[in-house]
Amino acid sequence: MSEVARKEGREAALTALSALLGARLSTAAAIREAHGRDESWHAVAMPDAVAFAETTEEVAAIMRICAAHSMPVIPFGAGTSLEGHVSAVHGGLSLDLSRMDRIIEVNAEDLDVRVEAGVTRKALNDYLRDTGLFFPIDPGANATLGGMAATRASGTNAVRYGTMRENVLALTAVMADGSIIRTGTRARKSSAGYDLTRLLIGSEGTLGIITELTLRLYGIPEAVRSGVVPFASIEGAVDAVIETIQSGLPVARIEILDPLSIRACNAYSKLTLAEVPTLFVEFHGTEASVAEQAERFGAIAAGHGGAEAEWASKAEDRTRLWEARHNAYYAALAFQPGKKGMVTDVCVPISRLAEAISGTLADLETSFLKAPIVGHVGDGNFHMLLLMDPSDPRDLAEATRIHDLMVARALALGGTCTGEHGIGEGKIKFLEAEHGPGVGVMRAIKQALDPQGILNPGKIFGA
Amino acid sequence: MSEVARKEGREAALTALSALLGARLSTAAAIREAHGRDESWHAVAMPDAVAFAETTEEVAAIMRICAAHSMPVIPFGAGTSLEGHVSAVHGGLSLDLSRMDRIIEVNAEDLDVRVEAGVTRKALNDYLRDTGLFFPIDPGANATLGGMAATRASGTNAVRYGTMRENVLALTAVMADGSIIRTGTRARKSSAGYDLTRLLIGSEGTLGIITELTLRLYGIPEAVRSGVVPFASIEGAVDAVIETIQSGLPVARIEILDPLSIRACNAYSKLTLAEVPTLFVEFHGTEASVAEQAERFGAIAAGHGGAEAEWASKAEDRTRLWEARHNAYYAALAFQPGKKGMVTDVCVPISRLAEAISGTLADLETSFLKAPIVGHVGDGNFHMLLLMDPSDPRDLAEATRIHDLMVARALALGGTCTGEHGIGEGKIKFLEAEHGPGVGVMRAIKQALDPQGILNPGKIFGA
Repeated sequence: MSEVARKEGREAALTALSALLGARLSTAAAIREAHGRDESWHAVAMPDAVAFAETTEEVAAIMRICAAHSMPVIPFGAGTSLEGHVSAVHGGLSLDLSRMDRIIEVNAEDLDVRVEAGVTRKALNDYLRDTGLFFPIDPGANATLGGMAATRASGTNAVRYGTMRENVLALTAVMADGSIIRTGTRARKSSAGYDLTRLLIGSEGTLGIITELTLRLYGIPEAVRSGVVPFASIEGAVDAVIETIQSGLPVARIEILDPLSIRACNAYSKLTLAEVPTLFVEFHGTEASVAEQAERFGAIAAGHGGAEAEWASKAEDRTRLWEARHNAYYAALAFQPGKKGMVTDVCVPISRLAEAISGTLADLETSFLKAPIVGHVGDGNFHMLLLMDPSDPRDLAEATRIHDLMVARALALGGTCTGEHGIGEGKIKFLEAEHGPGVGVMRAIKQALDPQGILNPGKIFGA
Repeated sequence: MSEVARKEGREAALTALSALLGARLSTAAAIREAHGRDESWHAVAMPDAVAFAETTEEVAAIMRICAAHSMPVIPFGAGTSLEGHVSAVHGGLSLDLSRMDRIIEVNAEDLDVRVEAGVTRKALNDYLRDTGLFFPIDPGANATLGGMAATRASGTNAVRYGTMRENVLALTAVMADGSIIRTGTRARKSSAGYDLTRLLIGSEGTLGIITELTLRLYGIPEAVRSGVVPFASIEGAVDAVIETIQSGLPVARIEILDPLSIRACNAYSKLTLAEVPTLFVEFHGTEASVAEQAERFGAIAAGHGGAEAEWASKAEDRTRLWEARHNAYYAALAFQPGKKGMVTDVCVPISRLAEAISGTLADLETSFLKAPIVGHVGDGNFHMLLLMDPSDPRDLAEATRIHDLMVARALALGGTCTGEHGIGEGKIKFLEAEHGPGVGVMRAIKQALDPQGILNPGKIFGA
């Protein structure tokens, strides 16, 4: 398409969108700027306009207009992505779903809930509080559930409850031509045709726009025990995790924080933890089973240089502890004001976790960058938050160097470049190394479902 | 393509395949006949030839030959499908993977294993016995793991351990053009691109040929308690299941058998169970937690007219019990010799299970057909085995009538037409009703990945 035709198409699209949405279409610079940025180090790329949709049918109408004019559409939830997912690298329309925040139907007896895509994870759990149920997937940020599905997010509970992949029963989505599909049912399992639910989960807005989700819920456990276990060494802490997982202990959460992360969390979340390698753990079950799990874990930890656990006996202490863990990224950023975070996200088989972490620590020792490490280590997933100034070429090159080494090591160990954040803009270069000819299959699917390439262009595959 | 061109193409393909495979290409009628049939009532459709592949590279070479000559390819494992998946409705090549039966690598410390697609579930568990690990997915038949992935199979353990969807980490597959892809890694989770693993799982051989699988394993539980609980009524048994699931009790298996099924199993598996509605249950955990679970379940059952459980204290009694459950289909067939089974497979939200089963029983009361009912009721999934003679138009029409009613009811209750068997030939007519415009998306993916339509044609979509 010529530049003139392109420009004319965009103008026609904006005119039609404005007629459809009125004041809910904005071209104000501040709004566009806020929708071209996420919480990562990636450069802001502003959309031409921002649409605030309120229903699935409206999303479909918007999509039909954009399809008719080859206008890119970038779905936007809470803007908490860490890989530049929302940036409008080819301009176009940012489609803000945050006003689609209705909780449509709680089926307590079936342990499921249907929500609009703009509901955040905290809003859902606040709403559910009186039902005795909860939704376990908890990335650090208070992301929208639509965004969490689109990036295949997980969090601290994944070791016990799975990720978004395992916890979405069905989706409503608007496809590139404006058609509306509903994938899945409320049945817990099905063999009826291709798994479009799982295809859309993790597709990062490049195959369709998720507008509603049916999610699995869980009963709030009868008993919960959370605690902090300081270790003499990172290796000891990691080995304790490995043994815990290998022994089949059904730990609900098991998170590592290195001394630098503890220091950052102490400062940001006003904790007073010893600045040593530390595991945050939690057990769910009946009173008896939680006591049994805690005892077994204590024995494993002691065998690897772990101190006695400090248990958070009150609910508010537990909340404070996990709130601090969820804010670890913000704590790290506050640790070196002015720097941004290149948040790495490798995930490896549990037996190779010690190797992956110690290799990364050795790389870091050769570097001038500071990088706290935290991790959902029960899954083999950890983050090194490389603190750097992306406008400083020396910082950027060094962070990139360390990150590349980390991913190459993870792939060599049988792992993945991203456990839960997605490819976005930042990990495109690793996709081919990880998937080889599988990338061609992904491209063929993208081409079939979005032949114009207007759904979140420039993500996952680049260009 | 003209009929002459088609015939010439098939002959050229067979010549090339014969040169590649020698004696491992067969056109013997008995072999072709055995490969055009599964364990269902569907008519046999013989392939033109059967290839016995031994490696992924060989499957790729076969696929390239067939692609060059537009020759259909139908993957074949153990032939235990219940929906006509292996029948060569357009002729072509049956690609038998049963000789690809190597267990490539057990990673005990990571609880995973890599196998070739022709390994059966029993062969894998026999191999694993000394490691203290097991693979939980257990359809009734001793299916191959490749076939189980292709149909998104599950079984009695799914309520606790999930289905093939949750238990495959990675696949090797040969695509329609003969390219080899490897989806996924050994990491427990990943957000790196489209979920090709889940797309291939349940694609019934229509998108690619699965040649290798990396599977999750689990530690054999420290303690296992299995038992049989007779109930005064089907409704009571179902209500006990519903309350068990809603209470969050982590039951490992919970299966219903109606009086007719019990009678069939008593005869076939030489049991002496009372011919009343019965639950088979199993709990996994530590000694303490299994005792606690059994006690809680006992209280729930008693509240719904369940008798005292009869626990199978010895391992061989447990094995005998579950062997009988796995053989329920064969037991039902033996109950009316000469009849075949139209095996229904609906799955509904647990709160609607009583309604789904009682509606089906009411339909059956109006019918002259016999149909034992068994079910993985913890998932909301149950099978009514309609015993009928497919060559008798009256039988076939009546079985179809009852099945159609059952599926319509399941869809109205928020469920699916198939929980674990797949669409195959037998449920094509329900796909549109269940998925609506989603079927168009499935067709677009099929067209993109298999433009010639040579991978298992006539399945899922028909034609």
